[in-house]
Amino acid sequence: MRAMVITTGEEILKGEVVDTHAAWISEKFCEVGVEVVRHLSVGDNMTSLKEAFLRVAGRCEVAVVTGGLGPTEDDLTARAVAESAGVPLVEDPAATASVAAYFEGRQVAVPASNLKQARLPKGSTCIPNPVGTAPAFSLDINGTRFWFLPGVPREMRYLMTEAVLPAIVDLQPSGSRLVKTAITTFGLPESVVGERLSGLESLFQGIHVGYRAALPVIEVKLWAFDQDGNSLQQLQQAAVAEALNRLGDYVVSGKGLSMAEAVAERLSETKQTVAVAESCTGGLIGSLFTDVSGSSDWFLLSAVTYANSAKENVLGVSGKTLESHGAVSAETVKEMAAGVKRVSGADIGIATSGIAGPTGGTDEKPVGTVWIGIATDTGTEAMHFVSPFKERHQNKRIFAFKALDLLRRAI
Amino acid sequence: MRAMVITTGEEILKGEVVDTHAAWISEKFCEVGVEVVRHLSVGDNMTSLKEAFLRVAGRCEVAVVTGGLGPTEDDLTARAVAESAGVPLVEDPAATASVAAYFEGRQVAVPASNLKQARLPKGSTCIPNPVGTAPAFSLDINGTRFWFLPGVPREMRYLMTEAVLPAIVDLQPSGSRLVKTAITTFGLPESVVGERLSGLESLFQGIHVGYRAALPVIEVKLWAFDQDGNSLQQLQQAAVAEALNRLGDYVVSGKGLSMAEAVAERLSETKQTVAVAESCTGGLIGSLFTDVSGSSDWFLLSAVTYANSAKENVLGVSGKTLESHGAVSAETVKEMAAGVKRVSGADIGIATSGIAGPTGGTDEKPVGTVWIGIATDTGTEAMHFVSPFKERHQNKRIFAFKALDLLRRAI
Repeated sequence: MRAMVITTGEEILKGEVVDTHAAWISEKFCEVGVEVVRHLSVGDNMTSLKEAFLRVAGRCEVAVVTGGLGPTEDDLTARAVAESAGVPLVEDPAATASVAAYFEGRQVAVPASNLKQARLPKGSTCIPNPVGTAPAFSLDINGTRFWFLPGVPREMRYLMTEAVLPAIVDLQPSGSRLVKTAITTFGLPESVVGERLSGLESLFQGIHVGYRAALPVIEVKLWAFDQDGNSLQQLQQAAVAEALNRLGDYVVSGKGLSMAEAVAERLSETKQTVAVAESCTGGLIGSLFTDVSGSSDWFLLSAVTYANSAKENVLGVSGKTLESHGAVSAETVKEMAAGVKRVSGADIGIATSGIAGPTGGTDEKPVGTVWIGIATDTGTEAMHFVSPFKERHQNKRIFAFKALDLLRRAI
Repeated sequence: MRAMVITTGEEILKGEVVDTHAAWISEKFCEVGVEVVRHLSVGDNMTSLKEAFLRVAGRCEVAVVTGGLGPTEDDLTARAVAESAGVPLVEDPAATASVAAYFEGRQVAVPASNLKQARLPKGSTCIPNPVGTAPAFSLDINGTRFWFLPGVPREMRYLMTEAVLPAIVDLQPSGSRLVKTAITTFGLPESVVGERLSGLESLFQGIHVGYRAALPVIEVKLWAFDQDGNSLQQLQQAAVAEALNRLGDYVVSGKGLSMAEAVAERLSETKQTVAVAESCTGGLIGSLFTDVSGSSDWFLLSAVTYANSAKENVLGVSGKTLESHGAVSAETVKEMAAGVKRVSGADIGIATSGIAGPTGGTDEKPVGTVWIGIATDTGTEAMHFVSPFKERHQNKRIFAFKALDLLRRAI
């Protein structure tokens, strides 16, 4: 089965946003055995949209289009589809209900402009959208099954997962299903992860291995299309065991948990609590922790002590340590970790202090330098790492993951 | 002048890599006044490549193609170009010299496979590549000027900057350029932003209005292609003034700053410092602040006091307040805000406490409830907000932006 992906929006053509939708959709299509043969991005205007739809229609079995379903004047997808298919736009009862339900759930009257979103090309099937205002829809044009999805990432992903992919699996030969395992790794570059797993596909015929860099984490996917129920399931298990063995302690989770989720699981199992003292990571560790539902059970405090005075006042770091060793030092992060453990009463304290960049580096402590401290009931330690990057967001993220990885290995 | 961008490679179609080339090239094109009307990604096979080249040829003035110029068997771009243009591949002296110079600089003999890279479609102009093995080239096909560049990011960017963009500037009518303004808004749904700005394009002919939801922020872009120096510049300024007027105090920034950057600018201007006490936002406010380079000038501390004991120990919130009003209350966030202001010595303290979900809600305080406190030298206030969402990430983000917006309006 062949597919094309069309993303729409001036912001893509202007290069203001990178088109991550096309890659995400393609990856999901790959996983259910659909071959993506083309990506296409066009602007929000009737001519380009119609030309794109008519160009794709009849040239592949399935197509996904994202964007242009919003309530404003520049949201033209439904109109362009109607004109391409030669049908009128009609008010769709299911779409009206979807829009009404969305606003009702929020106890707000439906704004007039949102009613526009309930007008769909005649003959299309509405896909109600419980997570946003724009109902999605599907329509056959010239033998190609099109799905039209909102461009808002969360809504697009939800509707792909809940509606499009199941429909595509139904279109595929029966009994065939996907067996998939995700392994989260941290600490090895993608090329080395690939080298360690080289030959796995020939060793376990029928198992596919894919890699995805969600930096600084590398995800490994092992998957198979099981044609007759469970003949590939055992092979898949053996391949996963082999992969885990080859990746060793770089494996954060053998079941696709994120770094914070893997740490959370381990803290819950061992009934330990944690507190964080963050300088260069600026709250990111706390934010990653609190993304995990139920984190209040094990996460007590993150003190984002950006100013040295805050390190002294909140964490009790000594002014002398800061003066003689500097904020970015083994001595300071050890005092920060011990301080936050003491102040919060947590079982474990972790601390970060470094230079995220782009400015602030010196010859001795270049941009990318970080010290990470950890304090437990048995003592306090510090480790040092220099990231090769000079960019602030990237370094904050790497520093935070380094700290979580140190914590993961300690519990 | 209109352009199309073609990126090639199976890894793009499989979703293994996100196509960042198309966005980067488009942004550069925009900056020199070229309007990008289409992105296209196709696989590394003769059929797809030829079809793409022939489809684009004659439909725009300029096109850039990346990838497929390497030395291996699956690098087919030059052959596909030759077949599309109906010319043979011939050894190009400038291309041979480029390959030879590259290897000479590394004191290595030219491998046989790299000589293939010196065979270009007859009639094309070689663009020597000093930073890699693959010479680039340009060729007119059916009235469209094509540039074929290597897919290696560093080489592609170098050749775009050094060769393609200067050539395009020479092709342009003098004075033509893009005029663009971004307005960041917060607090109005996209539909209402659109309603407020409806009719703007007809009022200011030649000005385009676009919307982008980077939730919870809505970005409005006003842009025009100025053909003769500055006739549209005044119109653009008038349109921006009208848009700002219609959007009122929902405008976070009239020049595209993020919420945190707008707050940062205001704090720097007024020479004020800030500290944060976060409960439900879990460090996200600190992380948003520290994404801004130079934040150490005005951001002193974020105390992520997830546990009640941390609220008492670190911020001095009274146990009695927590007991009688609960952690999610006006009284608690006021004490948190005042506490973090006192502990840090900052000019302003802000605090959040709420229920991000998906669990933890009650009838009285449903998921989505947040209290936000602010403490300044003139007193302490609290405000209350209920988000319509039940999802944790979304609520954390909305709560954080609500707090930043309150801060923005207070300074």
